[in-house]
Amino acid sequence: MATMENKISSLGEFGLIELIRDKFLNSGLGGGGDVLGIGDDCAVIPQGENDILVTTDLLVEDVHFLRSDAEAWQIGWKSVAVNLSDIAAMGGKPVGTFLSIALPSSLDTSWIESFVEGYKKISEEYRVPLLGGDTTSSKGPIAINLAVLGTIPHGAAKLRSTAKEGDIICVTGTLGDSGAGLNLVLKGIKGSNPEQDYLRRRHYEPTPRIHEGLMLQGLSEVHAMMDISDGLASDLGHILKASRVAAQIDIDRLPLSQELKSVCEEFKALENEKAAPRGNSDVAATSKDWNPEILALKSGEDYELLFTCSPEIPTEITKAIPGTPITPVGRIIKGTPHITYLKEGREIDLNIKGFTHF
Amino acid sequence: MATMENKISSLGEFGLIELIRDKFLNSGLGGGGDVLGIGDDCAVIPQGENDILVTTDLLVEDVHFLRSDAEAWQIGWKSVAVNLSDIAAMGGKPVGTFLSIALPSSLDTSWIESFVEGYKKISEEYRVPLLGGDTTSSKGPIAINLAVLGTIPHGAAKLRSTAKEGDIICVTGTLGDSGAGLNLVLKGIKGSNPEQDYLRRRHYEPTPRIHEGLMLQGLSEVHAMMDISDGLASDLGHILKASRVAAQIDIDRLPLSQELKSVCEEFKALENEKAAPRGNSDVAATSKDWNPEILALKSGEDYELLFTCSPEIPTEITKAIPGTPITPVGRIIKGTPHITYLKEGREIDLNIKGFTHF
Repeated sequence: MATMENKISSLGEFGLIELIRDKFLNSGLGGGGDVLGIGDDCAVIPQGENDILVTTDLLVEDVHFLRSDAEAWQIGWKSVAVNLSDIAAMGGKPVGTFLSIALPSSLDTSWIESFVEGYKKISEEYRVPLLGGDTTSSKGPIAINLAVLGTIPHGAAKLRSTAKEGDIICVTGTLGDSGAGLNLVLKGIKGSNPEQDYLRRRHYEPTPRIHEGLMLQGLSEVHAMMDISDGLASDLGHILKASRVAAQIDIDRLPLSQELKSVCEEFKALENEKAAPRGNSDVAATSKDWNPEILALKSGEDYELLFTCSPEIPTEITKAIPGTPITPVGRIIKGTPHITYLKEGREIDLNIKGFTHF
Repeated sequence: MATMENKISSLGEFGLIELIRDKFLNSGLGGGGDVLGIGDDCAVIPQGENDILVTTDLLVEDVHFLRSDAEAWQIGWKSVAVNLSDIAAMGGKPVGTFLSIALPSSLDTSWIESFVEGYKKISEEYRVPLLGGDTTSSKGPIAINLAVLGTIPHGAAKLRSTAKEGDIICVTGTLGDSGAGLNLVLKGIKGSNPEQDYLRRRHYEPTPRIHEGLMLQGLSEVHAMMDISDGLASDLGHILKASRVAAQIDIDRLPLSQELKSVCEEFKALENEKAAPRGNSDVAATSKDWNPEILALKSGEDYELLFTCSPEIPTEITKAIPGTPITPVGRIIKGTPHITYLKEGREIDLNIKGFTHF
């Protein structure tokens, strides 16, 4: 048997990114000066009075989606949404999208027509034109790459590296919904009720927080910002590492939707019937798949905004965006980058890792 | 057996692009105003004193390259080169590249290291930083998407749509070399002599004409411009369609390298030994694979610049770029978009079609 030592899988996603980045940084070809290259949600390129934001995402069939589970129009919607979310994460305004797509020759044209419908629907909603791209065939899976450009006033982009000791940590919306929706899909739970439908929609039709990002970008009290794509625990880790600070998260304050709580109750009860009860009330010890707090911390693809702000103004911020709840969930503290989890004020051990593609 | 009627293959590459573009144009989401969207080598987005150029290309293993034929570093080089060529095609200056790459988990890390070396080598040569991207796994082929940004003074981009009746048609460099190099690869001809090596290098390590593009951009006498990626016949067709004019091409004036002529002579002679001679001197009737004029007109991936300019100044232009020949190969005439081919001044019928991915 071949060892995995010299394989891509042994590098991991972040190892691979580091391998690529280091080679360029060492040659002075990784940005620098006013240009922000690899390492945040978008690259930032100064251009007169504005900065240009650029983000790109590659989705591959059987890795990011299954044709059997997701409607083509949902894949179209989501591929735009996740990129707009990166623009929102810096506080930018989207300017245009660029779609590269590789399709098997034997694919039904109805698939691409439906894909384009979903792509167009979200493009209309946020008034973002499709400005270019590339089409080709694939002898394997469908592959979809989006590059999205945005603009922001020069120097105004909210970065990951600017969290400050004493900041409050806030999130928009609710967390864990997308992860629970994915659970339903992966476990083949086809039953339809409004709660389950809501969670599946949160997974397949995420809302990029463009308006919220623009509002937060205008507030000097907001220091660091990013979007939650890999899960709160993992993504907050990026802010901590970039800002060289630590954090406390209050498990009790994580914003959970009624739908998430209701569906988790239902399936936890079902699974408890099957398994012997463990008599342990610690969140880490109950069934992980249907534990709403674990889903909120660990599951990815909520595409909510995560930001830190000075402690004087959280009440103003929490009321600033009509229809979108903003919840303080913890605080930035001094220390080497790591997260402490508090439940009812007491520290607990969760041993959480984020999602990686390899 | 399933019919191919409703399959992607029945649409063809340009049909697929039209399907996507039309849906967006009809919704007012395809650019417009000062913004140039789908339909040229790059999108053009005004941004203060400058315009931002954006181009994107998706390469898929087994469609665009075979891992067994091409060195990883050559794929790295070429994926940057073809995108820089699109920036050159408008006369722009490259600003940064964005690399999205999907890799099988079982791939050797040496492959990606070599790929990055080639990517870095050309990035250094043209001083273009790598500013971002995305990495993911693939359960099928390697997929590589590049998005490249450039800048150009506002309104100065050379377009496909601005050729004028009476213009001279010019090309940089020599044509057909890349196609002949690909012939050698596809026919499994491994023999090594300087001429064959040159042609293979022209296929795997094309030179983006950035410097030439910048120089031509500064000349108001240069009207339309693009790069040759699908073959002169096909690409000139795009200029004719966009500019609503016709063209004559002088077959005798096509710039052919000594290496192309020598290798074509060698293999044409070999193939003639095998086959019965047809006794026809017409270029279309001899072996197409090793006919240098057919290669120059029809084979893609030369990544030379194709431009039209007013007839008063061709001599000045042809001397303007040290080391890069510029050759007049025909003229723009009045008429519906089509190309007439002249050999020794007489019209001949070539019946040439360009390359399509489906």
